[in-house]
Amino acid sequence: MIEDVQRLLDRHRVLDDLARRQVTGRRAVIEDLQHRQNAADIRRRLRVLHPADLAFLLESLPMGDRRLIWADLDDAVAAEALLEVDPTVRESLIAATPTRRLVEMAAHMDVNDLAWLADALPPAVLQQVVVDLDDAERVLLRQTASFGTGSVGHLMTRDLTAIQESTTAADVIEDIRGRGALPQYADPLFVVDRRNIFRGAVSLQALLLAPAATPIADITRHTLQTFAPDDPAPAAARAFERYNLVSAPVVTDRGKLIGRLTVDAVVDFIQQAAERDALAMAGLRGGEDLFAPVWNSARNRSLWLFVNLVTAFLATRFIGLFESTITELVALASLMPIVASVGGNTGNQTIALMIRGLAFDQVSRANVRYVLRKELLVGLLNGVLWGGLVGVAVLVLYRHLWLGIVLMTAVLLNLVIAAVVGVFVPLMLHRYGRDPAQGASVLLTFVTDSMGFLLFLGLARLLL
Amino acid sequence: MIEDVQRLLDRHRVLDDLARRQVTGRRAVIEDLQHRQNAADIRRRLRVLHPADLAFLLESLPMGDRRLIWADLDDAVAAEALLEVDPTVRESLIAATPTRRLVEMAAHMDVNDLAWLADALPPAVLQQVVVDLDDAERVLLRQTASFGTGSVGHLMTRDLTAIQESTTAADVIEDIRGRGALPQYADPLFVVDRRNIFRGAVSLQALLLAPAATPIADITRHTLQTFAPDDPAPAAARAFERYNLVSAPVVTDRGKLIGRLTVDAVVDFIQQAAERDALAMAGLRGGEDLFAPVWNSARNRSLWLFVNLVTAFLATRFIGLFESTITELVALASLMPIVASVGGNTGNQTIALMIRGLAFDQVSRANVRYVLRKELLVGLLNGVLWGGLVGVAVLVLYRHLWLGIVLMTAVLLNLVIAAVVGVFVPLMLHRYGRDPAQGASVLLTFVTDSMGFLLFLGLARLLL
Repeated sequence: MIEDVQRLLDRHRVLDDLARRQVTGRRAVIEDLQHRQNAADIRRRLRVLHPADLAFLLESLPMGDRRLIWADLDDAVAAEALLEVDPTVRESLIAATPTRRLVEMAAHMDVNDLAWLADALPPAVLQQVVVDLDDAERVLLRQTASFGTGSVGHLMTRDLTAIQESTTAADVIEDIRGRGALPQYADPLFVVDRRNIFRGAVSLQALLLAPAATPIADITRHTLQTFAPDDPAPAAARAFERYNLVSAPVVTDRGKLIGRLTVDAVVDFIQQAAERDALAMAGLRGGEDLFAPVWNSARNRSLWLFVNLVTAFLATRFIGLFESTITELVALASLMPIVASVGGNTGNQTIALMIRGLAFDQVSRANVRYVLRKELLVGLLNGVLWGGLVGVAVLVLYRHLWLGIVLMTAVLLNLVIAAVVGVFVPLMLHRYGRDPAQGASVLLTFVTDSMGFLLFLGLARLLL
Repeated sequence: MIEDVQRLLDRHRVLDDLARRQVTGRRAVIEDLQHRQNAADIRRRLRVLHPADLAFLLESLPMGDRRLIWADLDDAVAAEALLEVDPTVRESLIAATPTRRLVEMAAHMDVNDLAWLADALPPAVLQQVVVDLDDAERVLLRQTASFGTGSVGHLMTRDLTAIQESTTAADVIEDIRGRGALPQYADPLFVVDRRNIFRGAVSLQALLLAPAATPIADITRHTLQTFAPDDPAPAAARAFERYNLVSAPVVTDRGKLIGRLTVDAVVDFIQQAAERDALAMAGLRGGEDLFAPVWNSARNRSLWLFVNLVTAFLATRFIGLFESTITELVALASLMPIVASVGGNTGNQTIALMIRGLAFDQVSRANVRYVLRKELLVGLLNGVLWGGLVGVAVLVLYRHLWLGIVLMTAVLLNLVIAAVVGVFVPLMLHRYGRDPAQGASVLLTFVTDSMGFLLFLGLARLLL
């Protein structure tokens, strides 16, 4: 195990190095350590890692090693790593940690982080943690919990530096000096009035350039993107991407400033959503930790595997209807999977494009008819081209004109069906509030398999 | 067409509204416009859109409407929209624009944007544009072109505000006042020495709090992540994500500061990479514009469709070997696609996990053996479970014990094969510098189809 960790730390050093080329001192230290190989050294090396790097290391380790390292970390360090790791890995770590240690870790988190993590912690831990909070913190924790996982309220931070409209530039600079340091992404500073109603923002640059006595109200910019806590996170992520935002105020419907949405939270959200989509399209529910215990992984994949089995079974029932036809010309059995496979393949191309279009709001009622017509034409074009090709191949191989014609026609028709299903299935799932990435492919394959068999064997019975 | 645009603008208004809730004035204007329906109005509405919103609108319009609106835009506005649109849509717009107008548009871009766009512009346009540049700009353009598309040098901006180490806080504030405004994400300011060697950074906050006479060298932070122009963009993106960066200096190997990598460029990169992966897994080369002309789309999908046809054809050749067995028991023809389908399905789950693991550097030599063992066990477990289930189903349906046993065994073995292939194919593609998302799935399906037919029919011949 120690060797694995060594190797990972060494690989990791490359990235670390890339990111901190400047810090030659640290580089020398790490290179120095690289040649020794004992647990005490590793422990020392882990201690100097950035929490995000530690999280990466935990994500890259098989379960046993992951737990060994995890058990060995200081509670404060472990708390920071826990905030950084991937949700599925977090789950595995929390499950492996005794309640008492989790409570200790929680004590090292501020109430913002705690609120963010609350969903993932066992209720018993949360109950013990809440006891040590003051009233304001408890209210905050409850409020955050009330926002859904996919909302701006869930992604935002409450760690903000709001300044009063009625003060002057000099007052604010004095105030910042008193605080010592601003939170990350604190530029621009948000301006509120006495009742904590959001008024606008002042950039540090404006503050820097303003004469000391300038009233804050005079340098406040009022045209700013704001979000409501119950705005959907994907829409907010698109706004961040589109307007290149770094930090945006979150405001209640009565105008009170309650938080801040920052670009780091949005980047994580985009990354995780993209990952989830890719895994969902392949038939995995939610995320899956690459190093999850075998039993968990088997269970995670079982659902779609089962659905796939059932649909495959149902689709092949069509073959049974044509057993006599197959007995007459057994070559049909060899060729029928081609029709099904080609249909599934093109249909999945259409689905991938539709999922992207829906995610970006590019497909709407206004243009769906256009998309459908286009996909139909593409299917037809490719159907004629490739259907013709396999038709000729079969003609040459089997010296059977009508077999070639039947195969060609079935491929052509199945490509057209795949185009229609590939457009409509994601659309329907989306309209009924479901994730089109989850399940669209299985449904499509069911249709293209069934129709592939039915068309090919049906045409064969009619024409041969 | 006008109605479609109206509808899109209205949908879009929701997002716009979400992003600019504060700007009630603009909201009223848009609502006011919503009720009229003529081209002049639309033109006026388009003129007030943020370039990113205009880009979104262009991406959401069928080709004909897209070109109508595009032809109608002012060159300056069109230039900004061209920088914002999706690469595939950009291609379609550039192809539809006469050289003369492209040159006009290019004249509205600064040399940074031009350098960034250079790859996409036709050589004839570039030649005419270069004539109007001064020598420094020409050098810059040539340098940027020399960095590969996937490199930090290609993503970075040269628009930076470097300050001299030898000045004082008051000098810098005076300097910023002279410039009027800093570029976006200019915090922290980068510090260089007389020879333009990068020395560190000064945050606006530090500048704000420092007494006027403070030498810049005293408030410079030296431990900062830097990148080299030829660092790979994905590694830089991971560093941004991991360390929550907003802006990082790009430095040559001799230490000269040449540019700045900013979070907006990184967010775009992450988003596009994730999209490309999702489309590639479904068998689409590169991006595809949902509204591309039929002919382009058909061509874009043809490659993998052709590969799929060939592999499906080859895989089904195995069926031909067992024609006599099928003639004896025609039920085999109905059941064999199930074995192939289940194998392809689970194999693709493994591939999706591997692609993610490889993209995040979580799979390495150090732990690949662990991953393989785990996937094998998952395959075995699910094989026993679901193989057993279909075995029993067949036993009940066909009242044929040995047919059930053959199907069960074939499903079990094919799931194990799928696990091995699902781990190794992405690994091999990755090791030989290829994108595992592109092609892994087709290769896998070829193996699981072939093996599915061979195992099931082979076992049937042996045992029945």
